[in-house]
Amino acid sequence: MKQRMQQTKAWKHPKALVESSSVGAGTRVWAFAHIMKDAIVGSGCNIGEQVFVESGARIGDRVTVKNGVQVWEGVTLEDDVFVGPGVAFTNDRYPRSPRSAAAGEKYSTKAWIAPVVVERGASIGANATVVCGVTIGRSSMIAAGAVVTKSIPAFALVRGVPARICGYVCVCGQPLAIPKNGRVACRECRRCYHRIPGGLVAG
Amino acid sequence: MKQRMQQTKAWKHPKALVESSSVGAGTRVWAFAHIMKDAIVGSGCNIGEQVFVESGARIGDRVTVKNGVQVWEGVTLEDDVFVGPGVAFTNDRYPRSPRSAAAGEKYSTKAWIAPVVVERGASIGANATVVCGVTIGRSSMIAAGAVVTKSIPAFALVRGVPARICGYVCVCGQPLAIPKNGRVACRECRRCYHRIPGGLVAG
Amino acid sequence: MKQRMQQTKAWKHPKALVESSSVGAGTRVWAFAHIMKDAIVGSGCNIGEQVFVESGARIGDRVTVKNGVQVWEGVTLEDDVFVGPGVAFTNDRYPRSPRSAAAGEKYSTKAWIAPVVVERGASIGANATVVCGVTIGRSSMIAAGAVVTKSIPAFALVRGVPARICGYVCVCGQPLAIPKNGRVACRECRRCYHRIPGGLVAG
Repeated sequence: MKQRMQQTKAWKHPKALVESSSVGAGTRVWAFAHIMKDAIVGSGCNIGEQVFVESGARIGDRVTVKNGVQVWEGVTLEDDVFVGPGVAFTNDRYPRSPRSAAAGEKYSTKAWIAPVVVERGASIGANATVVCGVTIGRSSMIAAGAVVTKSIPAFALVRGVPARICGYVCVCGQPLAIPKNGRVACRECRRCYHRIPGGLVAG
Repeated sequence: MKQRMQQTKAWKHPKALVESSSVGAGTRVWAFAHIMKDAIVGSGCNIGEQVFVESGARIGDRVTVKNGVQVWEGVTLEDDVFVGPGVAFTNDRYPRSPRSAAAGEKYSTKAWIAPVVVERGASIGANATVVCGVTIGRSSMIAAGAVVTKSIPAFALVRGVPARICGYVCVCGQPLAIPKNGRVACRECRRCYHRIPGGLVAG
Repeated sequence: MKQRMQQTKAWKHPKALVESSSVGAGTRVWAFAHIMKDAIVGSGCNIGEQVFVESGARIGDRVTVKNGVQVWEGVTLEDDVFVGPGVAFTNDRYPRSPRSAAAGEKYSTKAWIAPVVVERGASIGANATVVCGVTIGRSSMIAAGAVVTKSIPAFALVRGVPARICGYVCVCGQPLAIPKNGRVACRECRRCYHRIPGGLVAG
């Protein structure tokens, strides 16, 4: 009974700052993390140490955000996403210091914000960088240290600077050996995929 | 009246550590940031969460330093600079653990420190890395994820590993379409520039 | 006498969290750092601000870990290692959010952990990324911003994405000008080395 009640509430480390009232059941927020007012975090998430979730950011259910990541306004992480340690999101294509005279009127509205959507089940490796204005497709995988400058198709595995497709991965994370025009089943979990022009689809 | 008085003082989040007495008016220091004794921070700055400013570092006026950045001794950020989240500065060309026998006498003086100067109005994108011993020129822009290994000219836009010039930007941040030998006006703010060998000058 | 006693104990900043009972003499742990229960940290180390050392991680003696680094379970840092600010270690080759249905049974045991060993005296530059399953050889040096995807030989200097060998360094950190088949003495400290196929050995 006690355990059941614990599962229905979010838990925060005593050194975390949680100012949002929209943090879902079973979500854990670790030390020195900060979830600002009006940020939305779903249920069953793991929000690592020193993670910062800005007002206006949206995080789905069962999302894992490892240490030292900032989720800015304009960034959406859908359900089941994994964000590795030190990943940098951005929301400003050509940033200047907002208080400088040069920035002029730019920061007087929020028209400068370029969104990022990370679709359900995608993984972003450690220290990767996501340039704003892109969609990271469903269940795709960004290699550690990559710099994402364009949208990524579903199931694609990308790496490098700038990030380029070097393969495909299964929903379970396992790399897939895809024949040019054919079908493939994951060796790990037996899920099936087939190629279409420019990518991969499940089934 | 109350508002006016607030503008003339620095503000710190209750969870920030500010040990320097040289933090200028109107500067805001956010949670888990740490400004050490004898660090110099100007007025009107925004010092993000988990930012560390070491004794001996110098930060000008109206500078924005986003979350998770360390500004080491030897690093100077001039007025109006923008530093994106996760940017890494360095001040040691060939680092070893200072307490190891191999490091020998190296760390017994400060001769090992190689400086970095970020000139006024420059922007450094998220997760970029700045190898020490360089100057990042006035109003230049370093793309997210770039690794800067050489000095960057004024107004240059650089990207990649190592960072190379891929264009030029206006003081306001807007990319400029520069004819080979010609003049150009920014489409956004109408500031004018012209090419000189190896770069761009205002006017 | 008082000084001598201080040297025989670890020191922690009042804002650090130290839950491990295995932190060696003379080690300093700075603000907002967190050393978890059952993590092992040797003597004479410097554990920077916001560093996270997970249960099961092992750190030797005289190791320097700069700000914002996470040392995960599966990562071993041998004696005299230097880890620059913002370095990302990893321990999961193809990560998925552990609580997602897609991850299945993967995270029910620890078989998914791929280790990283950083051998004694090695240095890892700022913002570098270490893909798991590798050994970083004795006294090697990883340039700032590099992405390590393969094991690195002793004394090698590597840089880029992915990291490739671009030279060799002395135990003291100084680059070595190595003749193709010959011997070399460090210009700084006079230590001697000679080439062997695929690398360098001391002596």
